[in-house]
Amino acid sequence: MIVIMESRASDAEIADVVQQLCHAGCHVRRSGVERVILGVSGAGFEPDPVLVTGLPGVEEVSSSEETGHLVSRSFQRHDSQITFANGTVVGGERIAIIAGPCSVKDRDTLQQTAEAVKRLGAQVLRGGAFKPRTSPYSFQGLGEEGLFLLREAADANGLLVISEVMEPSQIHLAAHYCDILQVGARNVQNFPLLRELGRARRPVMLKRGPASTLDEWLAAAEYLAVCGNVEILLCERGIRTFETATRNTMDLNAVPALKERTHLPVVADPSHGTGRRDYVIPMARASIAAGADAIMVEVDIDPSTALSDGAQTLTIEQFGELMRQVRPIADAVGRAID
Amino acid sequence: MIVIMESRASDAEIADVVQQLCHAGCHVRRSGVERVILGVSGAGFEPDPVLVTGLPGVEEVSSSEETGHLVSRSFQRHDSQITFANGTVVGGERIAIIAGPCSVKDRDTLQQTAEAVKRLGAQVLRGGAFKPRTSPYSFQGLGEEGLFLLREAADANGLLVISEVMEPSQIHLAAHYCDILQVGARNVQNFPLLRELGRARRPVMLKRGPASTLDEWLAAAEYLAVCGNVEILLCERGIRTFETATRNTMDLNAVPALKERTHLPVVADPSHGTGRRDYVIPMARASIAAGADAIMVEVDIDPSTALSDGAQTLTIEQFGELMRQVRPIADAVGRAID
Amino acid sequence: MIVIMESRASDAEIADVVQQLCHAGCHVRRSGVERVILGVSGAGFEPDPVLVTGLPGVEEVSSSEETGHLVSRSFQRHDSQITFANGTVVGGERIAIIAGPCSVKDRDTLQQTAEAVKRLGAQVLRGGAFKPRTSPYSFQGLGEEGLFLLREAADANGLLVISEVMEPSQIHLAAHYCDILQVGARNVQNFPLLRELGRARRPVMLKRGPASTLDEWLAAAEYLAVCGNVEILLCERGIRTFETATRNTMDLNAVPALKERTHLPVVADPSHGTGRRDYVIPMARASIAAGADAIMVEVDIDPSTALSDGAQTLTIEQFGELMRQVRPIADAVGRAID
Amino acid sequence: MIVIMESRASDAEIADVVQQLCHAGCHVRRSGVERVILGVSGAGFEPDPVLVTGLPGVEEVSSSEETGHLVSRSFQRHDSQITFANGTVVGGERIAIIAGPCSVKDRDTLQQTAEAVKRLGAQVLRGGAFKPRTSPYSFQGLGEEGLFLLREAADANGLLVISEVMEPSQIHLAAHYCDILQVGARNVQNFPLLRELGRARRPVMLKRGPASTLDEWLAAAEYLAVCGNVEILLCERGIRTFETATRNTMDLNAVPALKERTHLPVVADPSHGTGRRDYVIPMARASIAAGADAIMVEVDIDPSTALSDGAQTLTIEQFGELMRQVRPIADAVGRAID
Repeated sequence: MIVIMESRASDAEIADVVQQLCHAGCHVRRSGVERVILGVSGAGFEPDPVLVTGLPGVEEVSSSEETGHLVSRSFQRHDSQITFANGTVVGGERIAIIAGPCSVKDRDTLQQTAEAVKRLGAQVLRGGAFKPRTSPYSFQGLGEEGLFLLREAADANGLLVISEVMEPSQIHLAAHYCDILQVGARNVQNFPLLRELGRARRPVMLKRGPASTLDEWLAAAEYLAVCGNVEILLCERGIRTFETATRNTMDLNAVPALKERTHLPVVADPSHGTGRRDYVIPMARASIAAGADAIMVEVDIDPSTALSDGAQTLTIEQFGELMRQVRPIADAVGRAID
Repeated sequence: MIVIMESRASDAEIADVVQQLCHAGCHVRRSGVERVILGVSGAGFEPDPVLVTGLPGVEEVSSSEETGHLVSRSFQRHDSQITFANGTVVGGERIAIIAGPCSVKDRDTLQQTAEAVKRLGAQVLRGGAFKPRTSPYSFQGLGEEGLFLLREAADANGLLVISEVMEPSQIHLAAHYCDILQVGARNVQNFPLLRELGRARRPVMLKRGPASTLDEWLAAAEYLAVCGNVEILLCERGIRTFETATRNTMDLNAVPALKERTHLPVVADPSHGTGRRDYVIPMARASIAAGADAIMVEVDIDPSTALSDGAQTLTIEQFGELMRQVRPIADAVGRAID
Repeated sequence: MIVIMESRASDAEIADVVQQLCHAGCHVRRSGVERVILGVSGAGFEPDPVLVTGLPGVEEVSSSEETGHLVSRSFQRHDSQITFANGTVVGGERIAIIAGPCSVKDRDTLQQTAEAVKRLGAQVLRGGAFKPRTSPYSFQGLGEEGLFLLREAADANGLLVISEVMEPSQIHLAAHYCDILQVGARNVQNFPLLRELGRARRPVMLKRGPASTLDEWLAAAEYLAVCGNVEILLCERGIRTFETATRNTMDLNAVPALKERTHLPVVADPSHGTGRRDYVIPMARASIAAGADAIMVEVDIDPSTALSDGAQTLTIEQFGELMRQVRPIADAVGRAID
Repeated sequence: MIVIMESRASDAEIADVVQQLCHAGCHVRRSGVERVILGVSGAGFEPDPVLVTGLPGVEEVSSSEETGHLVSRSFQRHDSQITFANGTVVGGERIAIIAGPCSVKDRDTLQQTAEAVKRLGAQVLRGGAFKPRTSPYSFQGLGEEGLFLLREAADANGLLVISEVMEPSQIHLAAHYCDILQVGARNVQNFPLLRELGRARRPVMLKRGPASTLDEWLAAAEYLAVCGNVEILLCERGIRTFETATRNTMDLNAVPALKERTHLPVVADPSHGTGRRDYVIPMARASIAAGADAIMVEVDIDPSTALSDGAQTLTIEQFGELMRQVRPIADAVGRAID
């Protein structure tokens, strides 16, 4: 159950509502920026709206039928925009470009890659420091050293940093180095992680799981929102289907379908979406044409030495070509790319 | 096994090769325009390349490992173009637009729809006369009357006609009225139908099956090619996945993946690909951005009375908006729309 | 719309109902054994139940919402049983065993295979004469010669024959040689073929398509039923999923789910369902435990020379082991195997 | 890379090998019971087998190509058996039965349920205390109170306890109350959780993810094994496909396919596998027929008040019927049920 307080509700009114709910044995999570939102769950029962409906300061009581309430378009009509310190805005007229290696491997190549992607038009540097790998014998990332190198390379070039966190204990560290925290596809329903990120002071990019329906994905985003973090980017990166010609089946239908359901900005990741270097540029064009707010691609000064995902990583030249090709598409849909 | 004859092979040389194969108990299908191509299958055994390799006039003997040989990019480097009597070319610089109702229902609305789509930029009128329907109790199409109405409405507006055939016995009739014969998704592996269409004198648009891999789809196209019909359009219309937010999951990755594998032109059908009117325009934009050679959409002067697929059919106004939005995208990828 | 006549309806009453419907522009298909059933479809409109509700002899008028009406459990509570000339009953207490090679290759091995499967307990000999093959260059079957060899080998051993038909023009020929006509997975929605088979005087085994939902599959069976053929066996043979460890994902959930929805007998095909010889025996056991009425497996006296699907074909010894293992399972579920 | 030491390798020899690897910049994880196993990963490079091949005490050096080495059948030919304090063995001749409510809701119903499932033949009591729920507004479990109630009800009836952990911080607590720790389907690739569980002194039941291939699932199990915990049960609970007639598509093919690939015991969960109470009994029969070592089902004294998954939860009477029906199946495959 969600209780939405009036924007002018007093602290006393809010406290009273919370008290009523707690007395009835409910758990209450408080969130909301413009106005206070109470996420209410019962310990073994459905909370009854009657408990608080009509109390002073209560604007609306909504049952939990709609699982992704706070992130839904019906809750907020206008598009969410996420604004960063360096002036980058995701979800506005300009399309953001996120680029960088799959994993951070060493200082030199990262610096060169960062310099190149900045020069060619990117705003955000990506790179894995904590890597979720199918096999325990694969390279698992450089950890904090990787985060440090990312920050250093980004700062030298006026870029933002995005990197993945895999467990609650990494959040504090990652938030120290990163502007955006990424939740990987395998963790889209790692609810303890989502709850902790809901309390973090950093925007979160939530990747779609390979078997996530849109409803489940939005319900996962709601975990972040109900815990207080509404700066969420949703990243389509392909779903798992019977087709093996591509690593995943990038589901671009999700772009208009999300735009109808949610106010959150949508990022498209054609590198993981296709798994094939040759298909990244056409699918980047298609993503922007479909309405994506940002593109994330894997780029490396030397993809042949990539520690993971080499087959889908662009060279600098290819990334330059991508940028050359997506700009007129952005233009054609009334948007712009730096 | 495929035997490719030299372009200057004499009739006597060809006859000799065929004779060798037949004596060895093989079935031989002759096809090819620029040069003769012999599709060879054994009755209960794999034909042996040794039978004909090195005979006069034989250029190449290829085992059947590559199931889609004649339609492959390695067989023909340059893009196939299909040229129609009214000057329309599919597979060239200009992107073709195919539009019309799901099913033909009556003369008046079809005429009005044809006039409108022509005026707004379409080259081809679509409409179902023989309808494959999941339930035997659903409307099954007007049959020949539908084909007649399509031809009449198309001729009045300088349009081409495409309509679906469901069985060999309909081909002759449909070829009388239509410029392009469509094979529906459910019939993508209806091999007797494909073989008959391989002998038809009409281009064929082959829709992808809801569970077709690209390899299977191209192997189905090869049935047409080996029987002599190389004027084939491949139409991506969505695959079946776990996601239910859209009727099908339109797989735009297929566009660059097909462009790599085959020289055949690629059509995108965002109406069936999404099943949702609201998503058709963004996915039409994305299809062209991804590299599609043509777009097919369902349009009806009055979608509310559509006898099938109403939820995905555009109004004339929406189709006008689609055309307005896809033109700059075509431009952005160096192509054009009438 | 379906009109179900009373079992004691007179010919005049039936004729009157048909006349009313035809005057209203409907198409009417008559079927039914115990009582007359009229399948009614409109040419471009939904037929109105008001047309015939309450006319003499009309028992029930059902709109077409339920797409698989005649095959549904709600239409007929008791299990359908199909009885053959040699006394074999499918759908009763005894579980039927269908066995034989994927494709018929030659007389000798077929005779030996037939003799062996009979001796070990099979009632029906399977074998492909018309083969639907993904590639046009693969072996396409021996055609009528294959059917002749099947009949001969079956007759010599007191077996029934099942073989696949791929197009309407093959039905008459196949019905001459076969006791059961098979519709392959690729043709599950080949509606012209289903309609013709609905008029055939032979039971039909309808395989599930690799992307068929249960509802679509039952709607395909309804095509047969509404055209007059209610002797239908449904054969689960695996669906297409992301998993590649098996050729298909055999969906045994379909067995109880079908038993709830329909009165038709259910066959399980673990050979195609798994595509792996080693998994056929455990999945045959599981199929019977789940409630299947028959098992179909590929067996060949020499699988290594199989012209198709060798990897999933059992040797005679393995088939003997299968029979040894499934008998106690049949017993455990209160059924029996010869 | 995996380094397998000889069983008679001395501590000094092991120390020397570890030192060589660490000097080369590798991370080394030590595990193994009968003999020491070193899991080796490089920080940004593939470790080179040359580093340690041939050193004293080294039996075998295996590259990481085979992602699930320690859990593979090629590593250990004989079936793993897991033995519990109360004498229950999973993976042996007897088939284990795990039963209980989806979530723990209150003391009384849990006690009654525990008493009933014990009386009818179960060895393990299941119940969720930490519940992963798609929506943040759904009941999230009773937490430690739930674990306490489970232990109490189990002890009163001589049952073992299994319950799910969702994050590393819950492991210590859960291990205090539970005999088996469950990893849910959503966490199958939550690698930090798997690593921590690899160090826990409790057997782990690892559920298959809805989009996990067998290879990925076994690689996830390898995370547990390489960190030192080889007491692993694999639980098939259905995968995500296009079919919506069942909640998931229970993939029983996985049972023989796992038995070929791994020595670990396999549990089947027909409750989640089908999501439908009516299908649980036939699929439980089928699971045992296919070769499963244990069955897990949801049972509740009053399913209508279940806080989650009510539609798939059996009543006590239904569970009694299930036990009555699975015993002869176990018998038929040469096994037994208490």
